Amino acid sequence: MKFASLRKECYEANMELPKLGLVIYTFGNVSCIDRKKGVFAIKPSGVDYDKLTPEDIVIVGLDGKIVDGKLRPSSDTNTHLELYKAFPSVGGIVHTHSTFAVAWAQAARAVPLYGTTHADHLAADIPCTEFMADDRIRNDYETETGLQIIDCFKKHKLKAAEIPMALVAGHGPFTWGATAAKAVYHARVLEELCKMAFVTECVNPKVPRLKDSLIQKHYNRKHGKDAYYGQN
Amino acid sequence: MKFASLRKECYEANMELPKLGLVIYTFGNVSCIDRKKGVFAIKPSGVDYDKLTPEDIVIVGLDGKIVDGKLRPSSDTNTHLELYKAFPSVGGIVHTHSTFAVAWAQAARAVPLYGTTHADHLAADIPCTEFMADDRIRNDYETETGLQIIDCFKKHKLKAAEIPMALVAGHGPFTWGATAAKAVYHARVLEELCKMAFVTECVNPKVPRLKDSLIQKHYNRKHGKDAYYGQN
Amino acid sequence: MKFASLRKECYEANMELPKLGLVIYTFGNVSCIDRKKGVFAIKPSGVDYDKLTPEDIVIVGLDGKIVDGKLRPSSDTNTHLELYKAFPSVGGIVHTHSTFAVAWAQAARAVPLYGTTHADHLAADIPCTEFMADDRIRNDYETETGLQIIDCFKKHKLKAAEIPMALVAGHGPFTWGATAAKAVYHARVLEELCKMAFVTECVNPKVPRLKDSLIQKHYNRKHGKDAYYGQN
Amino acid sequence: MKFASLRKECYEANMELPKLGLVIYTFGNVSCIDRKKGVFAIKPSGVDYDKLTPEDIVIVGLDGKIVDGKLRPSSDTNTHLELYKAFPSVGGIVHTHSTFAVAWAQAARAVPLYGTTHADHLAADIPCTEFMADDRIRNDYETETGLQIIDCFKKHKLKAAEIPMALVAGHGPFTWGATAAKAVYHARVLEELCKMAFVTECVNPKVPRLKDSLIQKHYNRKHGKDAYYGQN
Repeated sequence: MKFASLRKECYEANMELPKLGLVIYTFGNVSCIDRKKGVFAIKPSGVDYDKLTPEDIVIVGLDGKIVDGKLRPSSDTNTHLELYKAFPSVGGIVHTHSTFAVAWAQAARAVPLYGTTHADHLAADIPCTEFMADDRIRNDYETETGLQIIDCFKKHKLKAAEIPMALVAGHGPFTWGATAAKAVYHARVLEELCKMAFVTECVNPKVPRLKDSLIQKHYNRKHGKDAYYGQN
Repeated sequence: MKFASLRKECYEANMELPKLGLVIYTFGNVSCIDRKKGVFAIKPSGVDYDKLTPEDIVIVGLDGKIVDGKLRPSSDTNTHLELYKAFPSVGGIVHTHSTFAVAWAQAARAVPLYGTTHADHLAADIPCTEFMADDRIRNDYETETGLQIIDCFKKHKLKAAEIPMALVAGHGPFTWGATAAKAVYHARVLEELCKMAFVTECVNPKVPRLKDSLIQKHYNRKHGKDAYYGQN
Repeated sequence: MKFASLRKECYEANMELPKLGLVIYTFGNVSCIDRKKGVFAIKPSGVDYDKLTPEDIVIVGLDGKIVDGKLRPSSDTNTHLELYKAFPSVGGIVHTHSTFAVAWAQAARAVPLYGTTHADHLAADIPCTEFMADDRIRNDYETETGLQIIDCFKKHKLKAAEIPMALVAGHGPFTWGATAAKAVYHARVLEELCKMAFVTECVNPKVPRLKDSLIQKHYNRKHGKDAYYGQN
Repeated sequence: MKFASLRKECYEANMELPKLGLVIYTFGNVSCIDRKKGVFAIKPSGVDYDKLTPEDIVIVGLDGKIVDGKLRPSSDTNTHLELYKAFPSVGGIVHTHSTFAVAWAQAARAVPLYGTTHADHLAADIPCTEFMADDRIRNDYETETGLQIIDCFKKHKLKAAEIPMALVAGHGPFTWGATAAKAVYHARVLEELCKMAFVTECVNPKVPRLKDSLIQKHYNRKHGKDAYYGQN
């Protein structure tokens, strides 16, 4: 099997999605990139997770063309491609239709930063794109979905290395990380943050956003230069 | 065992319902039709899933009479019968009392199309029938339930081949598909769409319906003549 | 082991509660009665389900005194006792603190009959008692809890044989049936009805109660003299 | 292995958290104290539960310094330390980010005592601290988190032996008990109470707090001097 380790990383990360309750049936996909070789591995389109094998994973070049693999890659491949090109720190990308993240995406709302669980992972609201303009929908839709996320990050001056997730309005979540496993981790955390924020607003419709001093404290104790969370 | 493959298809699809969390106890039923033979197979009435065997599945003719089987068929048999007669593209039908689909049915609301998860499966709101008139309740109730769905599809000019699901007001969901397995798939997807729409409206009570250009794009990339989702 | 079959029935029904997600830790209890012998079997107080054995089940007489068993019976024993004395058709009783049933009990609301899932089991709103008066709390509290339910049934002219469940305001659900297993079935169904009604009201705050013709149709097709649901 | 039994108690209690659905990934931590030896055992920082071993548990002195262990202790260690110093009855402490408890903490609301499930465990609303002042955030944050809880208990005249749980505003829950296992029990019960209270308020926005006579009755039948719940 060519690109064996990249395929294996991609396969294993994909298999986490149903285990974590983030996808049903063929929903969702994970990819991971080998930047030296200029290729990324991605789930084939419409294949059930319980039938997926490492061999089924498709290898795609940074020109969007298939480099290796017998199956058609995920229909969302061009979205992954745009994100890899725009965000050089990203090693893996996940797309799911997890329930609460989709609900916020459908509601077309950024998820407000209400607590330290959120701030432990990102020091900003979880961004939500605009609804896509009709001319862009008629264009290469999946490429445009990636560009939409990138535009949103530019507009709000967000860094992909710090904000590892976004909601596409009316659609659902994309998350990323240094590896495919980290991107899956962010997909699971995002779903939890979206559920927590939903219940929070029900319990207190006038809940304030967490104040910035608490946000910075929590974000930096895990991610700042003097981070002291974890073993390194 | 007569009608062995039809019974097996029906049995296996029925057994998916408790696994997918769509039914408890004896709730729900799946049927599938052999149009050449003019019969359909359906779950017997009031039998627990963990005691169900392929032999228990009842074979019913298109006149509604039992063709083969020792047990009484589902009390909803005549609803299935009407749908098979009215919708020639349908190969399998599912009825459940899954939580969120029932909640929308009880709320007597069509489920608005809020996002691409929905549009990936149907390009319209999930229809909900009217409440049944009293004279129809006194009539053959289960036949009338099927006619209610059919009336709803006529009134709103919906095609069963494109809209594989409906809510019966005050009651619950019916879904269908080319096969029993596809009908079960639609039952699971429907439950997810109903949960997502519920949370979406909580998060944004003024959420707009997804715009038509996005609906058509997503529906057609899976189901249109130039569909490019999946492997065929 | 004395009263072996009664203890076994009681034990097995108790063990269903954690499996069905209706209790955590030592919450909840099931009893069942042998009316000929004038005794009922009930879970011992504060024993974890994973340590419970049939021998641990306590046998109590209709005078409320222990007939056999080494452990102290459930602190709710006198509630069960009153219900057995007042409702002669009852063979088994369940008390849980299941999440959605407790929420409605805390909200001190009868659960409106919104759909056929509900009507398949009872043709009335799920009754909720008044809050207990202070003098009754100071009295034998658990006896008074039973009397509260009985008072509620008298006041609303409900029959325990037809309405197999009640909510105690500020407390939680009691359910019953011809056997302990049936009572457990009603506890599970009650939890589902409470969840469905909660979501229904969120989705449509002005949802109407199901009309009586539909209620009677569904209740009678399962429980009326011409019932045609199930195999008998 | 030094401190083997303390480490084992701590390890086993930590392993309950993911089983009970109270944590995902490395979220949360449990500690337990040996007051005679003046040390407590705590989860190491950022270690996955499925990789955790008893040897990994870190032993910390009441001066906050590591006594034994190769790994860095939980970043929340100083919060545990302050609670152990201020609350002499406490033998074990749990911190989680469980969904519904976090939602109430983010909503910065004490959880009102709405029913007997709550009163069975504590005879007061579940307290929620103030948001931390900026100067305290800049100070030793985790120490201040403990002091915040202690201040909250002083202000409201609460006793840690009677109120085994608190929410930290914008953050999440801390619970405790005579042992680590009891503290875990309280973490699970807290999550349930928070979910019940959320649904209760949805079902009845004007729900009253449970009256004091019922609160005292339930609390005392489990915890009062004449308690009659359980086997002792």
